[in-house]
Amino acid sequence: MSGIGYYYMSRGLTFEGKPPKQPQGPGKKGKGGKGGKGGKGGKSGKGGKGGKGGKGGKAKKVTKLGLGTTKEEDFSTWYSELVVKAEMIDYYDVSGCYILRPWAFAIWEQIQAWCDSRFKELGVQNCYFPMFIPEAYLTKEKDHIEGFAPEVAWVTRAGSSDLAEPIAIRPTSETVIYPSFVRWVKSHRDLPLRLNQWCSVVRWEFSSPTPFIRSREFLWQEGHTAHATFESADEEVYQILDVYASVYEELMAIPVTKGKKSEKEKFAGGDYTTTTEVFVPDTGRAIQAATSHHLGQNFAHMFDIKFQDPNDPSQHSYIWQNSWGLSTRSIGTLVMVHGDDHGLRLPPRIAPIQVVIVPIYSKKIDAAELVAAINRIADSMRAAGVRVNPDVRDNVTAGWKYNHWEMKGVPLRVEIGARDMENNVCVFVRRDTLTKSTVSQDNIGATTADMLENIQANMLIQATERANNCKAVVDNWDDFMEAINGLKYAQVPWCERVECELDIKARSSAAAKAAASDTTSPDGEGPALSGAAKSLCLPLDLAGADMGGAKCFACDNAATAYANFGRSY
Amino acid sequence: MSGIGYYYMSRGLTFEGKPPKQPQGPGKKGKGGKGGKGGKGGKSGKGGKGGKGGKGGKAKKVTKLGLGTTKEEDFSTWYSELVVKAEMIDYYDVSGCYILRPWAFAIWEQIQAWCDSRFKELGVQNCYFPMFIPEAYLTKEKDHIEGFAPEVAWVTRAGSSDLAEPIAIRPTSETVIYPSFVRWVKSHRDLPLRLNQWCSVVRWEFSSPTPFIRSREFLWQEGHTAHATFESADEEVYQILDVYASVYEELMAIPVTKGKKSEKEKFAGGDYTTTTEVFVPDTGRAIQAATSHHLGQNFAHMFDIKFQDPNDPSQHSYIWQNSWGLSTRSIGTLVMVHGDDHGLRLPPRIAPIQVVIVPIYSKKIDAAELVAAINRIADSMRAAGVRVNPDVRDNVTAGWKYNHWEMKGVPLRVEIGARDMENNVCVFVRRDTLTKSTVSQDNIGATTADMLENIQANMLIQATERANNCKAVVDNWDDFMEAINGLKYAQVPWCERVECELDIKARSSAAAKAAASDTTSPDGEGPALSGAAKSLCLPLDLAGADMGGAKCFACDNAATAYANFGRSY
Repeated sequence: MSGIGYYYMSRGLTFEGKPPKQPQGPGKKGKGGKGGKGGKGGKSGKGGKGGKGGKGGKAKKVTKLGLGTTKEEDFSTWYSELVVKAEMIDYYDVSGCYILRPWAFAIWEQIQAWCDSRFKELGVQNCYFPMFIPEAYLTKEKDHIEGFAPEVAWVTRAGSSDLAEPIAIRPTSETVIYPSFVRWVKSHRDLPLRLNQWCSVVRWEFSSPTPFIRSREFLWQEGHTAHATFESADEEVYQILDVYASVYEELMAIPVTKGKKSEKEKFAGGDYTTTTEVFVPDTGRAIQAATSHHLGQNFAHMFDIKFQDPNDPSQHSYIWQNSWGLSTRSIGTLVMVHGDDHGLRLPPRIAPIQVVIVPIYSKKIDAAELVAAINRIADSMRAAGVRVNPDVRDNVTAGWKYNHWEMKGVPLRVEIGARDMENNVCVFVRRDTLTKSTVSQDNIGATTADMLENIQANMLIQATERANNCKAVVDNWDDFMEAINGLKYAQVPWCERVECELDIKARSSAAAKAAASDTTSPDGEGPALSGAAKSLCLPLDLAGADMGGAKCFACDNAATAYANFGRSY
Repeated sequence: MSGIGYYYMSRGLTFEGKPPKQPQGPGKKGKGGKGGKGGKGGKSGKGGKGGKGGKGGKAKKVTKLGLGTTKEEDFSTWYSELVVKAEMIDYYDVSGCYILRPWAFAIWEQIQAWCDSRFKELGVQNCYFPMFIPEAYLTKEKDHIEGFAPEVAWVTRAGSSDLAEPIAIRPTSETVIYPSFVRWVKSHRDLPLRLNQWCSVVRWEFSSPTPFIRSREFLWQEGHTAHATFESADEEVYQILDVYASVYEELMAIPVTKGKKSEKEKFAGGDYTTTTEVFVPDTGRAIQAATSHHLGQNFAHMFDIKFQDPNDPSQHSYIWQNSWGLSTRSIGTLVMVHGDDHGLRLPPRIAPIQVVIVPIYSKKIDAAELVAAINRIADSMRAAGVRVNPDVRDNVTAGWKYNHWEMKGVPLRVEIGARDMENNVCVFVRRDTLTKSTVSQDNIGATTADMLENIQANMLIQATERANNCKAVVDNWDDFMEAINGLKYAQVPWCERVECELDIKARSSAAAKAAASDTTSPDGEGPALSGAAKSLCLPLDLAGADMGGAKCFACDNAATAYANFGRSY
């Protein structure tokens, strides 16, 4: 109930976490694994998901490259397979720990670069604190240790010697960092103090792990800042929230809802928590995608962090503090929102490789000549700022390459063969829509850059439409339950009482259990329907709205705010 | 005796590691702490160090900002104080762990950026492997575990549960990473595979820790690559060594000797180890600054990492492997080589802030007008690519700022007061020489950029001259001992035998002990004279030299190579 990213402790649908079979090396296979798409035709109206109409007629060709199931049929297996076959994740012999392969790490580097430059513009400085926490520090604040104790990893031995006292590995660094603030903050001139570190943290969860979403060690950044006034801290909370919104929306083409957490869901001990919430239509669950907390003066009191009053040097005031964090969970969110039955789909801005060029070798053109032409085209694209990879390998087929790069989510594939060379054209295949077009080789750099912008914009539109279709504006319990069981989230008038939220959680969980025992799951989405609903956030754009005398959707009290409720990861 | 950066286990002079008193907040102090310099006049001839001639006449003014001792008088205290007062390091309540404050971390970011872009040009991909190692992995290779076992930190508990098996925290990642190579390398098409990660590692040393130089957790990069042929691996070893040489020489203005390690000092189990060696004239000790190992096929056999022979698919060959690493020890090296009695001196290319502009407030000029002028000048500098900080604070004196930024090592200070504004000039004070010059405010951007280039070049020249003065070319034992006791290292004809190196170590240690008990240390450098000498490297530029029938400097055997011997960290 405390620490940046409390979401790591929230429970919900978990994945089995079993490693799917390892992908094999490239073989001379045709373009397979493209069947089983379906559902592109019409919306079925069930929670905004694509229907199953178009599926029956297509037999699924399974190759070693393709995914063994579809996103719709078995989301959990689809996800676990995708992250391995896209070469993002590999499994490791310590349960709950995953290897971030270069493709995933390059995505993380894009996220880091985006955030880091914006943090620095706000005056944030990077630093590095030790990963180890003396037991006495960690246990200083009761709520803090209560929240983390069950999942703290302890070092008790070094070499062959038992340590005099066990030492914790950081699950988050409040108790590591704030003792230093006592030394570094003396005067109001030392404020604001804005620190950040990019590091890994360890939370030894015992529930089922899921790559990116829930792992025992994960990468993140954690910002820790100190301010002279509430206003200064408050302003920064929202500046950071805007950075988080921008990394999702502008870099990853994922729409977020910015909001405040309810009293029950906020960072324990803090004043308030803001969040960027992402919704995954296919599972009907929200992901808390990054959080920016205002901690008030609680930690300042706990660690006795004071500064000299500028107006009266004999007096000292406690500092105001924020903490805020974004983790590699963002990569899991990217996969869940944009992935399809062919694999990952990457928005161009975050794609480590934006364009792959595939030569169509044939007897009609000299291979060396074709490769030379492709390299010239690649150079033109690079000059236009495009990250391009000419895949001129001759030991795998063009079809294998199509599958391979589709699986990894490269936004644009360019095919060039003999006839294209004759006609001075090449074929563009967009990963977002899988549509083809023929374009001139003249001005190919600019054409490609434009296409990438178009794909970026389209992916945000696609994701926004899908997310919007998942929002149900309701004002009573029955409509609320219908919404969440239809894989939506609900925007409701709410009384904001903790007791009411506890009651909502209990009632929605019981209702889901009853429904599950009553019928078989209509969608093969059984697990997605289980679990309790909770408040996701109080959307900022509705803050202070006139409630017009509305009653709470769940109880008889007067509603005081609009809130989003739903199931979540 | 194994793992990248074996140097972390080498013993030698250690620092007490006691935290000096914390620096206080800024006060209205004059420019203090500038005394105690001395020794600038003539070389005393003792090991190339500045003599003590000029010292007696100057009384040392100690302020809260200045260092309590000089580099020459008490190197160990000087170093410990400097890293704290320059706001690079703060102490932490887990012994042997240090906080990297923003100033140190910004330096590390410069080192990272330099190396990372060059690694990527070589086709290296970043990734992230878990920090945890199952006991069975770590103990797979006997030499490996023998080398690391005494300092491995073990996690034995999570929450309130004891783990079924203890899990190690990585001291280095060979045994974490290579099991994955088995899955990822199938064909020669998968090679070369070049991976790198930036992370922290833990070596729970029980000897005295020193900030940057020896700590229980430290930051580094570790590269791990796999190749189809010896030649491919061999080529990369030297490409990486060149990157390491460049980050020291071109970014940090620190000359290195590139060389091969002796059989005794090489990475255990590998084919050979290359190194960049830095010499610290003030202590007469070398620092192994980064290493690039060729591992041969030893780990490949151990983990059974094979690929299909391109010529005969029924056959499989073991891969050839390299590993290479550079750590935050580089920052300690930077401090030791360039620091002086005023604090750190940073070469401009690595300086997070290259120029600080200090206004000289007075009644003769309106403060707002002066600040506006300084901001215009700063903008001109930024347009010329200069990282500039206008320090226009009015709560500390100009003198305090001089000391503050000198302590932090900012390469160039620019002072501007009323008379300077009248004359359209400003005053440049170079951190490398502490000399002043007056320059026109016209074209200030270009003038500043030129000055920074000049400082960068001069610092490398200074450091190279000092290092060259520490090299003694000798061919017999007596001259060798005179050299190392004069704080030099020796270049000698050597037989390359392990037995001979063991004997050299024993004899030089005994000789130093005898000398220490015989007289009081002539230089106040007692500890620097203690300890055994060992081979530092076989310099690459002398590889294959005609030995002309020379005998080994230490035994009667024929010399087979030239080697550098000396004391080291």
